[in-house]
Formats: sequence, structure tokens, C-alpha cells
Amino acid sequence: MTDTRSFPTPDAWLPHRVSYGETDAMGRVYYGEYLHLFERARGLFIREYGMSYAEVERRGLLLPVREAQCRYRKPLGYDDLAYIRVGISQWKRASIIFVYEIYDETKTDIIATGMTEHACVDPSGKPQRIPEWFRSIF
Amino acid sequence: MTDTRSFPTPDAWLPHRVSYGETDAMGRVYYGEYLHLFERARGLFIREYGMSYAEVERRGLLLPVREAQCRYRKPLGYDDLAYIRVGISQWKRASIIFVYEIYDETKTDIIATGMTEHACVDPSGKPQRIPEWFRSIF
Amino acid sequence: MTDTRSFPTPDAWLPHRVSYGETDAMGRVYYGEYLHLFERARGLFIREYGMSYAEVERRGLLLPVREAQCRYRKPLGYDDLAYIRVGISQWKRASIIFVYEIYDETKTDIIATGMTEHACVDPSGKPQRIPEWFRSIF
Amino acid sequence: MTDTRSFPTPDAWLPHRVSYGETDAMGRVYYGEYLHLFERARGLFIREYGMSYAEVERRGLLLPVREAQCRYRKPLGYDDLAYIRVGISQWKRASIIFVYEIYDETKTDIIATGMTEHACVDPSGKPQRIPEWFRSIF
Repeated sequence: MTDTRSFPTPDAWLPHRVSYGETDAMGRVYYGEYLHLFERARGLFIREYGMSYAEVERRGLLLPVREAQCRYRKPLGYDDLAYIRVGISQWKRASIIFVYEIYDETKTDIIATGMTEHACVDPSGKPQRIPEWFRSIF
Repeated sequence: MTDTRSFPTPDAWLPHRVSYGETDAMGRVYYGEYLHLFERARGLFIREYGMSYAEVERRGLLLPVREAQCRYRKPLGYDDLAYIRVGISQWKRASIIFVYEIYDETKTDIIATGMTEHACVDPSGKPQRIPEWFRSIF
Repeated sequence: MTDTRSFPTPDAWLPHRVSYGETDAMGRVYYGEYLHLFERARGLFIREYGMSYAEVERRGLLLPVREAQCRYRKPLGYDDLAYIRVGISQWKRASIIFVYEIYDETKTDIIATGMTEHACVDPSGKPQRIPEWFRSIF
Repeated sequence: MTDTRSFPTPDAWLPHRVSYGETDAMGRVYYGEYLHLFERARGLFIREYGMSYAEVERRGLLLPVREAQCRYRKPLGYDDLAYIRVGISQWKRASIIFVYEIYDETKTDIIATGMTEHACVDPSGKPQRIPEWFRSIF
């Protein structure tokens, strides 16, 4: 995942300014906050390619997280500007894997990398195949 | 609210150990986290007097927050043990006011005081009078 | 605070897209999250007028929150776009009061209003008068 | 990690009541909150074996997270009681791996499993070998 040439396309980039509420007593962004950043980038990504995740849910597709992983490489501090890059690395039959890279404000240093796997379920929670209308937007 | 002799009865006390995730770069509990502590104490209070807030909602009574206020008097640090005291200071026709005091581990120093006012609504969001079954549990 | 004509100047507006992580089981932004939004708007406000709050701290001025208050008027849901307006309503000898209004995406409906009072302290925590260099940036 | 017979010893169990602030619009605990639960369990674990993590830091050992991973198996809802089990699965030269299992209130169903890897650094951020005094407390 450190080889950025292999990052999947299409992708999206979310700029994010670190707030005080995201930091902890070590003076850095708390490790759990990175999953919020991943989610914000994911939401932007889906929106940029045609619809909001709110609309995806209204159409009957829910994407609860099945697994999340993050590798913390360099710290992020208060007021730092970061960029979160997101893409889809794998379409499985009934799940999707998103990958992420968080960069510093120059977009050269990698702060963190990670992934989330999402199940595709209907509103009752039953697994469903990825609908074609969803896949085709990317 | 600083005169603890006037704190309403009944009340409840929630012990709480401060985690890293609640602190910020100043090394103290972030100011927004106090509203989480108030909510935790509120939930314990209702549960101690007979039912969980989850059960209250199942019976058709929702209590969305209409107003919240907190006065920060002394800082709370990582790993500190705090006690959150909660009671009901006022029953209005269609709303309730909870009050809070947060103490240090000796229960002598006041860390913070605050209040939350909650509307009484039905599941559709329409205001309703406070049901007698709810009031009578306290 | 509902009379927006009386909102202090200068002011700043922060656009904010609601994420899943900010919502709760009622399907709305959790009440504690509003204090995060206030802080984000405050940071933007200071930055727009000449320096980041990180720089303010480096110059020896810390502004811990002494009091916070929020009035919740209308709910904010997932994926909603909100605007947080912020200004300074009062300069006291050794404290400052910021006020806030949160609007929906049309900037016509008020979602919430609030205030935070901040003590002016030096890095050791001792109260200090508001430095002229800070006041003059607004 | 699903084979609980192989969970490392010693271990510790943290009971945790889910608050509203931890849930999201899907009505379940938000995925980023699990890392807070892991941290709370980790803090309890260290405290039970002799000292608080705050004391560990005062002695010059910091344990920033280098990697975190969580597998979400079943949802946790508002007001649910969960148990977070924690242990140390591996002592490396200059890092430690903690593992976690989150159970429902009967301690039979596994809600989630996960791990965190922590670097051992001194207060300046320089890697250090795990001190013997730390290792010996477990």
C-alpha cells in the first residue's frame, strides 16, 4: 500500500484540517479518529461519482463495516492539514474493499494507510450481491 | 448549582475513568466529552430507577436534547477517576431539566456543573406531555 | 441570539458535511458533536483573521473553555450540509465570549445557537489579560 | 482469533454499557468507537497488573499505536452491555501486540475481535527496547 503508483482508480482526495477535538494528550490525532477520516473520504468518494451514501441507503443498499485496519506511520498534530485518498481495491460478490492513504499537506509524506471491508446488505440486514447500478457509478 | 446541598433528589452517581480518547492536546478531557459524561450519568439514573432509556423509547417516549450547558471549573486529566452526579431539577409540562455535577475521585472538588433540557416527544417527533408512568419512577 | 441581525462582526462561516460518525441512533447529529462544530468554526475564524490557534498557543496565549452552551432547534441528519457562523460577542478583561449559529444548507433555517466562554491563560495556566496583539487581529 | 481457547494469558475483562453517543444512524455502535473500547480495556489491563498507563508514561515509556485492526462480527446496540477481553499476544524487541475480543452480555457471542500494535518509545519519540520493569508486571 506504500507504493502509491498501484493505488486503484478512480480515487478521491479529501482535504481535512485537524481540530482540537480529534487530538489526544500525546498531542496527536487519536488513533480511533482515523476511522472517522476514512469514513469522510468514503462519503466524498461516493458523492463525487454520482450520489451520496444517503441516497445509496435510500435505494436499499447498506454497507456496514465488516473489517477495518489502519497503519499509523507518522503523527498528525493539531491544525495540520491532511489529505485522505480513497479508492476501491476489490469488488467481491457481496462485499467491497476500500483502501486509504492519508498524506500531509504537501501530499508527499504518508501519515497512514488503511482499508475497510463492507458487507452489502439490504435494509433488513440480509446479504445481497452488489447491485449493478452501484458498481457502474465508479 | 455550586451549592451541593440544594442538589435535587433522587440522584445517582456514575464513576468514570478518563480514557486517552477523551483527552485533547491540552492534556485534559475535551470540552465536548462532558456531554457524553452527562448522557452516561442520565442513562444510569433512569436505569437505577426502574428501566433503561432504551425501554423508555420502546414505550413511545423520546427525550431529545433541547438545550445543554456546562461550566468547566477544574480540568480532568487522563486516567483520573471522576464521579458524575445527576438529578432532575424541573418537570415542565412537556420537557424535563436534568442537572449534573462532576466531582474528582474524593468527591470533594467540583470539576464541572451543567444542565440539559429535554423535550418529551412521541416517535413521530410530536411534543407530548410527560407520561405519568415515566414521572412516577423517580 | 435568534435575531441574526444582531450577530457580531466580524464573523466567519464554516461549511460542514455531516458524517455517519457524528450521528446517533436517533438518526441525527449527537448533541455533544455540536461543540466540535463550534470549535472547528472558532479555529477557522481565528485563522481567517490572521493566524491559526496553534500559532496563538505558540505565542503563549491559551484559551481553555470555561463555559459552553447550546440550544438545539432543528435536527441535523446524515449527509446534511450545515453552515456554522461564529463571532466574538464580548471581550472581558481576561476572557472572551464566542457566539455561534448553525444553519441548514440554504442558510435560512437555524439549526442551533450557542456560546462558549474562554479564559485567557498563559502556558502555566495562570490567568492573563487579553494581549493586544490578539485583540487587534479581529 | 475466534478460537478463544488460544487467547493469551494473563487477560482482563472490561464491562461496558453502550451509550447513545457511541451509536450512529444505523442504530449500532459506530465502527471507530471500537478502538476506544480497545483502549479502555488496555488501560484496565495495565492497571490491574500493577500500575496505570499514566504511571507507565511517567516512567518514560510511551506506547503509541502503530497499527490497529478490528473485525466486526455482530452489531452492538444502544444500552447493550458488552465485555471487552484483552491480552498481550506478542512481545517484540521494541513493540507489543495486544489482542481483543468483544463479547455480548452473556459472554458467549463474539461481537468483534481485533489487535493493536504499539511501538515502545521514550518521551522524545525514539524507539526503545521494552523495559524489563514493564514486561515483568504481566
